[in-house]
Amino acid sequence: MRKIRMGMVGGGQGAFIGAIHRIAAQLDGQIELVCGAFSRDSQVSKAIGEELYLAPDRSYASYQLMFEQEAAREDRMDMVAIVTPNKSHFSIAQMAITHGFHVICDKPATSDLTEILILKEQLLQSDCFYGLTHTYTGYPMVKEARARIAQGDLGTIRKVVVQYQQGWLANSDDEDSKQAAWRLDPRQGISCCMADIGVHAANLTEYITGLHISEVCADLNSVVSGRQLDDDGTVLLRFAENTQGFHAKGVLLASQVAIGDENDLSIAIYGDKASLHWRQLEPNTLTIKYPDKASALIRTGVSPLAHLTLANLRTPAGHPEGYLEAFANIYVNFSQQIREEIFQIPASEKAQDVPGIDEAIRGMAFIETVVAASASDKKWHKIDYSGNRK
Amino acid sequence: MRKIRMGMVGGGQGAFIGAIHRIAAQLDGQIELVCGAFSRDSQVSKAIGEELYLAPDRSYASYQLMFEQEAAREDRMDMVAIVTPNKSHFSIAQMAITHGFHVICDKPATSDLTEILILKEQLLQSDCFYGLTHTYTGYPMVKEARARIAQGDLGTIRKVVVQYQQGWLANSDDEDSKQAAWRLDPRQGISCCMADIGVHAANLTEYITGLHISEVCADLNSVVSGRQLDDDGTVLLRFAENTQGFHAKGVLLASQVAIGDENDLSIAIYGDKASLHWRQLEPNTLTIKYPDKASALIRTGVSPLAHLTLANLRTPAGHPEGYLEAFANIYVNFSQQIREEIFQIPASEKAQDVPGIDEAIRGMAFIETVVAASASDKKWHKIDYSGNRK
Amino acid sequence: MRKIRMGMVGGGQGAFIGAIHRIAAQLDGQIELVCGAFSRDSQVSKAIGEELYLAPDRSYASYQLMFEQEAAREDRMDMVAIVTPNKSHFSIAQMAITHGFHVICDKPATSDLTEILILKEQLLQSDCFYGLTHTYTGYPMVKEARARIAQGDLGTIRKVVVQYQQGWLANSDDEDSKQAAWRLDPRQGISCCMADIGVHAANLTEYITGLHISEVCADLNSVVSGRQLDDDGTVLLRFAENTQGFHAKGVLLASQVAIGDENDLSIAIYGDKASLHWRQLEPNTLTIKYPDKASALIRTGVSPLAHLTLANLRTPAGHPEGYLEAFANIYVNFSQQIREEIFQIPASEKAQDVPGIDEAIRGMAFIETVVAASASDKKWHKIDYSGNRK
Amino acid sequence: MRKIRMGMVGGGQGAFIGAIHRIAAQLDGQIELVCGAFSRDSQVSKAIGEELYLAPDRSYASYQLMFEQEAAREDRMDMVAIVTPNKSHFSIAQMAITHGFHVICDKPATSDLTEILILKEQLLQSDCFYGLTHTYTGYPMVKEARARIAQGDLGTIRKVVVQYQQGWLANSDDEDSKQAAWRLDPRQGISCCMADIGVHAANLTEYITGLHISEVCADLNSVVSGRQLDDDGTVLLRFAENTQGFHAKGVLLASQVAIGDENDLSIAIYGDKASLHWRQLEPNTLTIKYPDKASALIRTGVSPLAHLTLANLRTPAGHPEGYLEAFANIYVNFSQQIREEIFQIPASEKAQDVPGIDEAIRGMAFIETVVAASASDKKWHKIDYSGNRK
Repeated sequence: MRKIRMGMVGGGQGAFIGAIHRIAAQLDGQIELVCGAFSRDSQVSKAIGEELYLAPDRSYASYQLMFEQEAAREDRMDMVAIVTPNKSHFSIAQMAITHGFHVICDKPATSDLTEILILKEQLLQSDCFYGLTHTYTGYPMVKEARARIAQGDLGTIRKVVVQYQQGWLANSDDEDSKQAAWRLDPRQGISCCMADIGVHAANLTEYITGLHISEVCADLNSVVSGRQLDDDGTVLLRFAENTQGFHAKGVLLASQVAIGDENDLSIAIYGDKASLHWRQLEPNTLTIKYPDKASALIRTGVSPLAHLTLANLRTPAGHPEGYLEAFANIYVNFSQQIREEIFQIPASEKAQDVPGIDEAIRGMAFIETVVAASASDKKWHKIDYSGNRK
Repeated sequence: MRKIRMGMVGGGQGAFIGAIHRIAAQLDGQIELVCGAFSRDSQVSKAIGEELYLAPDRSYASYQLMFEQEAAREDRMDMVAIVTPNKSHFSIAQMAITHGFHVICDKPATSDLTEILILKEQLLQSDCFYGLTHTYTGYPMVKEARARIAQGDLGTIRKVVVQYQQGWLANSDDEDSKQAAWRLDPRQGISCCMADIGVHAANLTEYITGLHISEVCADLNSVVSGRQLDDDGTVLLRFAENTQGFHAKGVLLASQVAIGDENDLSIAIYGDKASLHWRQLEPNTLTIKYPDKASALIRTGVSPLAHLTLANLRTPAGHPEGYLEAFANIYVNFSQQIREEIFQIPASEKAQDVPGIDEAIRGMAFIETVVAASASDKKWHKIDYSGNRK
Repeated sequence: MRKIRMGMVGGGQGAFIGAIHRIAAQLDGQIELVCGAFSRDSQVSKAIGEELYLAPDRSYASYQLMFEQEAAREDRMDMVAIVTPNKSHFSIAQMAITHGFHVICDKPATSDLTEILILKEQLLQSDCFYGLTHTYTGYPMVKEARARIAQGDLGTIRKVVVQYQQGWLANSDDEDSKQAAWRLDPRQGISCCMADIGVHAANLTEYITGLHISEVCADLNSVVSGRQLDDDGTVLLRFAENTQGFHAKGVLLASQVAIGDENDLSIAIYGDKASLHWRQLEPNTLTIKYPDKASALIRTGVSPLAHLTLANLRTPAGHPEGYLEAFANIYVNFSQQIREEIFQIPASEKAQDVPGIDEAIRGMAFIETVVAASASDKKWHKIDYSGNRK
Repeated sequence: MRKIRMGMVGGGQGAFIGAIHRIAAQLDGQIELVCGAFSRDSQVSKAIGEELYLAPDRSYASYQLMFEQEAAREDRMDMVAIVTPNKSHFSIAQMAITHGFHVICDKPATSDLTEILILKEQLLQSDCFYGLTHTYTGYPMVKEARARIAQGDLGTIRKVVVQYQQGWLANSDDEDSKQAAWRLDPRQGISCCMADIGVHAANLTEYITGLHISEVCADLNSVVSGRQLDDDGTVLLRFAENTQGFHAKGVLLASQVAIGDENDLSIAIYGDKASLHWRQLEPNTLTIKYPDKASALIRTGVSPLAHLTLANLRTPAGHPEGYLEAFANIYVNFSQQIREEIFQIPASEKAQDVPGIDEAIRGMAFIETVVAASASDKKWHKIDYSGNRK
């Protein structure tokens, strides 16, 4: 047995998300970072490799070089983490799979749905695993919410309100930052706010409820003057019919001009028996409200909790876990898939609980339909997850 | 000087709202209840009058009798509070005005916009005041929010998220209650949830921001099987253009099937300088968030507060005021209009700060447009406040 | 049947507490203010009577005059509310009882324990009721807490932490205010902080738990330079032995120099089965925590609640009640004692649930022992409730 | 440059704290675990080493073996983490220092003050660093609190209320757990609750305020029947005189029978200008309250923050950091001391900000004095930090 060996593409230039991925990957001591192509500037990439205490010959000037040279090593990396700007995700993932590396990728998976469908084909032909870092599903209480709903605690789900408010793009000078610039660049993608955070909210909704979004009515806005992509938006949701012929409804709010809201993702789910409430800023609490009795404040570390919740917790009650631990759950569970394959260990529930290529497809279809729906004066638009959108 | 004398129509049969109005009216010792037509059953009306320690001859069997007989008294009532089911508001108000009584009425003011416009005409021909109990604008911190925005603390307003979640109509057996039955009866009105609470949210939004809602996209639902009117809904809002040609946007969520949410009205307003947050369940706190410094937690009783806020507070810091005090503010401020007229006192800011016939018109136009918009597959619908809707 | 008629002594000169008492008394429409001796300055008293719309002949220049003249009236007042500075409570109450008026008095009841014991003797010889406005026990959720503990939900009580933090005396210039001046004047009493708020905390503790404080260890402080009385203090509590020979312990913190804490009274009670938590700033919520399951968030208006809780609530779920409603509960329940006597109505649970002379005795014994204990270098001091303290 | 190499003593048998230390140590990628003596059972120690992917020859059967053999290696560990039961800390630390290893140790440092003073002498003769894992001082907002107070934002500190409530020892069957057993064993130490958590509260208080506790009045309890050591207690605090001759006061509450409170450490500090509030369960928020203006809600990630706060943060606003990140700050800052020495890097503020042997001495003196004070009927007891306690 050994640690799973990881390489990284991107994450070089003071990018917050690269450092986050590295902490998340290594937090549980199951994965070690062994190599990286952190920047297209070979000097920069090398410098970062040194800061990270990598072997000098494993800081590469390009991902192409990395994949080629690592493929030839005895102690080659097992998996690669892709944390570059969105547009390059597709070609990097393709090449990684071609060389037999498992891929974990920041969302969105590609630039458009066509690319993801190609990627899925390639994956099906390969032995590679694919993970998408929908971080928020890594929180233990999100898993608890899913478990409680799956066992029927809420009854039939009727309504979902999911909100994701950020404020960091509230002013035009925010665009000077590198992080802002590529997100708001129409050459890099068709959406900023929906692609960046709206899709997280949609994924969280489907993960917790087990329902699929089938139709949307969308109103995207470019609030800050001069922007071409959305920095704010609201999407009305219709979910696929349940077995009783009932369509649950929902509302998804996302904004990057919500000054002061930091990174405020929350979800409320209303069933015919009870409702459930979770907020990322207080992630260790889950509230269930009933029509006729006291609300239940469920806390990490206080039994009883679902098996999968417990398997994603590290500390006892009252020792707050946060964003990095949620992120680490995505990584350690993904690495567990690899470990189970390499060492022929029986498949675990944990290892299966990782967002993958199908979530990537659903997310991209969501983004594309929302953008189209927002431009239309027709109210409702079906999401076609098959890729045959024309 | 004396107390303002009030009569009441409705509020008889264990109706929660009648008792609330009576407490609110009398809380500050400026208004005394002198008569009532509490029920169409004269025995019931009489019994309630006794419970309320009224003079035996001032519990009337009908509002018609009350208006006629009170009009003839030396010590006649000054104002009447109308707390009957919505459909009867119009004719009661008409007759009250005809007899020269000031009217304070539970919302909505009438059954439709046409009626309100008639009522407004009648009011303009009379010397009567008209007040509409949009209770939530009575909260001191709502007034503080309005004052802060008016003085520019938020900069240009860009986005409003207003939510009003209740759960008391979540199950079909709830309809057995008298309160539920008339609200859900299509013969009584065109909307349940929007007419009952959505309109409060719309009013609160316009009161705090000073902006006018100009267009809506609506999705109303009858969640509980068998219902003909909405028990849930979402409305996307576009506000009238500001002086820079910018249209702020908004989202209004209202539901009466949100199990466990009690009576959860909240509003978040995002400007280009700061955002503001208020929630009715914690009414004595107002939060302002900034992009680059600590959030400010503004509390009742802790200076500095706007003059009008202070004028609507009764207790020092840390002594929570609640719903009844907010309601009492509507009443005492309305009675102040009457007092100023009777006793020729100079007009005060407080007395002017009462929702009246124009808010009634705006609310009804909002409800009617939302209902029509929800039935349409066209996304956006203008609200015509003129009443010339064909 | 009629309203109970009330007079007031004190509450004249812009004193916050007088206005609060008047609102509380009249909020439920069961009591009417008919007369008052609001100030020793007869012009001032008369002016206040006018503001309150009293009959001109019922604003008195002194309480002596009021008691004498009211006693002679057909429509004489039934009860008197005493809201003067502490030192005068005793003699006013004595004279009121002598004239056969029921007494409701701001706490503390008298200047010292000796006086209260005399007062109790006088009451026992009379037909008068006596109520003490320990306002915080008027909150519905405080009553719910008491009911839950009485029925054993917490098991054996082991520990109580009660805190009452205010900040309004944090600076020496606060003493310029009339409210501050008499509280801090050693000629007016032996304690400021403990007599003013510590005693509320002690009363709340005994009311909720049903336990009696038997011993104290105290550390009182005069934090602001130059003060002679305490403005801050901590008291360690030992409760009387329970039937298993176990002494619960507690900690009582009180401060008037806790800048920014407004009026922050909270209590946590720990049993061997569960713990219970309530905080006055969020009074409509009661939390019960368990060792091995979700915490229960009990909210006003959400059943099931104890009968007495419901009897002290006016609004449905999600319509916050506050300090004035809690205060009104004290008044309306006290007036119910009088009403039951006058109209020979069977005694109700509500009417019995009012703090009276025995709570006054316990409170004064607590204050006196705490002051003595603080001055001693011996750790523990028994409270002698018998008055034989010598 | 390379990672700092760490060994571990203890942390073997499903002990929660061992795993926590390992995550904390490795979270930032600056320290690698290279060896361990995880259990006195060599098979167990070996098995754990395998689980942690250590080299087979570096899982030792005893710390003695580890120190001897590691001392002889070229790639010897730099530092050792001691996470055994308290009683063994002293001898392990002594031997580690003798072999030239830097020591980071779970608190308390030793069994008694005498031992710590010996340890300090040994350290002064050595080149070794010593760190004590007072984890809670690792939180960024605790550092921010310290910085704000140091720069005078609160004015003169007058009062501190620090509370540390846990519930995990509330029932006697809890003692069956290994974690409980040694803590409650009088042969292992003189105190359970104060030694385990009270000392954290005392340390947090001194860290944030910069004040030293000089005298205590203590009331320790063995709440659960049959226990010989304290499972609950309250300590009144007097701080050393400030430059104006003023003694601030405080209250320290600690309990392990506070059912449902999880791990609830909070602190409130009152100055003459403002007060400051922090709670471990919501660690990313710091509140400052003022007498005459809005409270400030300071959040991690929202500037301006002190330099040291920022240096202990990993994520942007709204991405909660928790207990493991706070713990990691202790580790990474301690390792920075070592790194600066090895690689001759200039000393940084971060590296200096680690609790060390002096905090260990203060903590032990606090525990010993509190235990003695609790047994005495004299109220106040001076803490003698010199070790000459007789």
